[in-house]
Amino acid sequence: MIRIPANRICMSAFPEQLLNGYRSFMSGRYAHETNRYRELARSGQSPETLIVACCDSRAAPETIFDAGPGELFVVRNVANLVPPYSPDGEYHSTSAALEFAVQSLKVKNIVVMGHGRCGGIRAALSPVAEPLSPGDFIGKWMSLVAPAAEDVSKNTMLTAAERQTALERISIRFSIANLRTFPCVSILEKKERLTLHGAWFDISTGELWIMNPETGDFERPEAE
Amino acid sequence: MIRIPANRICMSAFPEQLLNGYRSFMSGRYAHETNRYRELARSGQSPETLIVACCDSRAAPETIFDAGPGELFVVRNVANLVPPYSPDGEYHSTSAALEFAVQSLKVKNIVVMGHGRCGGIRAALSPVAEPLSPGDFIGKWMSLVAPAAEDVSKNTMLTAAERQTALERISIRFSIANLRTFPCVSILEKKERLTLHGAWFDISTGELWIMNPETGDFERPEAE
Amino acid sequence: MIRIPANRICMSAFPEQLLNGYRSFMSGRYAHETNRYRELARSGQSPETLIVACCDSRAAPETIFDAGPGELFVVRNVANLVPPYSPDGEYHSTSAALEFAVQSLKVKNIVVMGHGRCGGIRAALSPVAEPLSPGDFIGKWMSLVAPAAEDVSKNTMLTAAERQTALERISIRFSIANLRTFPCVSILEKKERLTLHGAWFDISTGELWIMNPETGDFERPEAE
Amino acid sequence: MIRIPANRICMSAFPEQLLNGYRSFMSGRYAHETNRYRELARSGQSPETLIVACCDSRAAPETIFDAGPGELFVVRNVANLVPPYSPDGEYHSTSAALEFAVQSLKVKNIVVMGHGRCGGIRAALSPVAEPLSPGDFIGKWMSLVAPAAEDVSKNTMLTAAERQTALERISIRFSIANLRTFPCVSILEKKERLTLHGAWFDISTGELWIMNPETGDFERPEAE
Repeated sequence: MIRIPANRICMSAFPEQLLNGYRSFMSGRYAHETNRYRELARSGQSPETLIVACCDSRAAPETIFDAGPGELFVVRNVANLVPPYSPDGEYHSTSAALEFAVQSLKVKNIVVMGHGRCGGIRAALSPVAEPLSPGDFIGKWMSLVAPAAEDVSKNTMLTAAERQTALERISIRFSIANLRTFPCVSILEKKERLTLHGAWFDISTGELWIMNPETGDFERPEAE
Repeated sequence: MIRIPANRICMSAFPEQLLNGYRSFMSGRYAHETNRYRELARSGQSPETLIVACCDSRAAPETIFDAGPGELFVVRNVANLVPPYSPDGEYHSTSAALEFAVQSLKVKNIVVMGHGRCGGIRAALSPVAEPLSPGDFIGKWMSLVAPAAEDVSKNTMLTAAERQTALERISIRFSIANLRTFPCVSILEKKERLTLHGAWFDISTGELWIMNPETGDFERPEAE
Repeated sequence: MIRIPANRICMSAFPEQLLNGYRSFMSGRYAHETNRYRELARSGQSPETLIVACCDSRAAPETIFDAGPGELFVVRNVANLVPPYSPDGEYHSTSAALEFAVQSLKVKNIVVMGHGRCGGIRAALSPVAEPLSPGDFIGKWMSLVAPAAEDVSKNTMLTAAERQTALERISIRFSIANLRTFPCVSILEKKERLTLHGAWFDISTGELWIMNPETGDFERPEAE
Repeated sequence: MIRIPANRICMSAFPEQLLNGYRSFMSGRYAHETNRYRELARSGQSPETLIVACCDSRAAPETIFDAGPGELFVVRNVANLVPPYSPDGEYHSTSAALEFAVQSLKVKNIVVMGHGRCGGIRAALSPVAEPLSPGDFIGKWMSLVAPAAEDVSKNTMLTAAERQTALERISIRFSIANLRTFPCVSILEKKERLTLHGAWFDISTGELWIMNPETGDFERPEAE
């Protein structure tokens, strides 16, 4: 049984907004896709794509790709970062999800999706005097892109927004490079059984920019 | 510049299914909520809820709670686990997101949402002879609930499915207990400015089970 | 009389393509706007806008702004640069045009329009061992933005295309800053009788990006 | 970052007339020539002609020659002047464009196009007591044709309009002569890989007068 501290708020009710949202899911999507959910429960999931995305409330992959149940295996952390391969016996949340998606689910594609106005990237560009908390978990996490952040910060001829976008895109390429440090990823990519992709979402305009695998540039896909 | 291994698949195109999904997002949701997206870009995000969910492709929080842009700040890792507070200077993806949501975005609610047929939980209940990869990231990650997993495994009177469900729910309570090891969480909870919740989603039936904060039991919410 | 070197090609005829284009102008635009041309000849020109644009054959201001006779007073030099105010008695082609537009024609707006894939900017980013000619006029001209070019070149985490776009936009802001070094410009701007603008044209997509006067960022105008 | 004077007009919006013109370009020319623009972006420009024209709003080369994207590399300065070759390490806007067009783009033709009622030529013929601005950039720039201007001014048997036209045409021949002072021009002309031309546009009648390379006279081209 869970231990309940004497002073906890006993009456905290589940957020009403979430319950309402859930009810609309049941009367809507679930009602229309009942069989799909049952089938997915029976046969298990077999998503073709792993998406590494940001926690940002404005950039949910299922929304942006209008994806249904079973389509996307999704890791979400601050600033959609992939740390380099490091089999050191520590807890590696993102590496664990990556290993599971590639080795167990055998996804065919990995997409690292960043977005504009990312709070994590902003934090990396403007390190604060004091951390958000004594643990300074954000500071440590974003230090993964510290070298790039310092590099970009030096470019004072760029506007703040331009530096932000630059680092957002650099960090996507950085995460893709880190993906390749995982043996299971690089081996399967060489065997052409796995492809890596980058994408950047503009919250304001809704534009999706796709990374050109040749050059690393971000370009908008042709309208269909 | 991004380093491109000589042998990489140069022509790998962005998954067509995702592009089609994106196009339907643009002509659908974005077209109807353009102003909302622009406003969210201008004024920044201010979600009221942080959700710790699983990477599973069948259990996306935005789908289950029919949530729109700006509503949910979402962390997704394998088996929706929250590690205990550990300010050891290592990279802690989930702790970083938690810190950002609580300290910077000042969310009012944290929901740990588990689900049925969780692959991570299954892995914890049936440790394999050899890990998925030399790094054994999943093995290490799921070892967070190893004590509970061993405990449940001994329960041979329960069926395999019952043990699975049991551990799925135990690990939700475990993650909520870990949330309280973070000073910023426990302090704000005592001040009644933050509430913690548990939820469990049944992929097959679509049922959402809410954790009773008193007892830790999972119950069906009243139909409205 | 013009001196004609003995060895010059005496029969060089005027390019046929230009003559054909001229004939289509006469039977088309001029035929439809005869009165406008006559009026513009009688009363003289009174354009409201001075545009400083690039010589590039793909970025003609009259084309991009679908402008008719009498609308735009246009300076075109390599990379649409405005040198700083320098009353040193030397020949200053761009400064002369600026002076004429502001003091004599009393334009209300000045637009510095850059564009993607600019050859001058590319030259500034990749200085060559030997100049195009002994005079090295391009090298000298582009040295106006040399400090920014060096700055941008250092950012090796950006792709070549990203560095190119960055410098194209930086140099537009640089030219606008230089415009303000001209007393006649800064005085009239303060009197709110003259406004300065930046724009960047994407040859490939046809997109026009407008400089935000507050931040210096380039943004796409709202569709009408 | 761009420096913004405290007193600048912060709300200055981009001229609406230009935005409307741009929208009509996009729905018109660009819509019809999208592939041409994309191809020009991909493969780069390769114009056959460099035109040295005047900034005058009534004499845009693309309009008069009904030229499409990629056809004309255009330098525009006051009175379409080409200064003599002067490798003195100073900034030479026109010489830089000339060097780029001839050495890098390898144009086949250079056209110096003047026009009637040229404000720069008028200024050269009637030097004012006080310059347009303390820098007197126009005065200095037009001093390039000062000897001819004085000469013509003495011709009191000619009407003012005749003197104006005379100097407009003399300065075209003068600029062509200056073009030949550039080694890269004279060498290529001798090799018959580059031809030089003069043209004069009558704003009122729309007539284009072509310079006879033999005599230097301006004549009307044969109607086709």
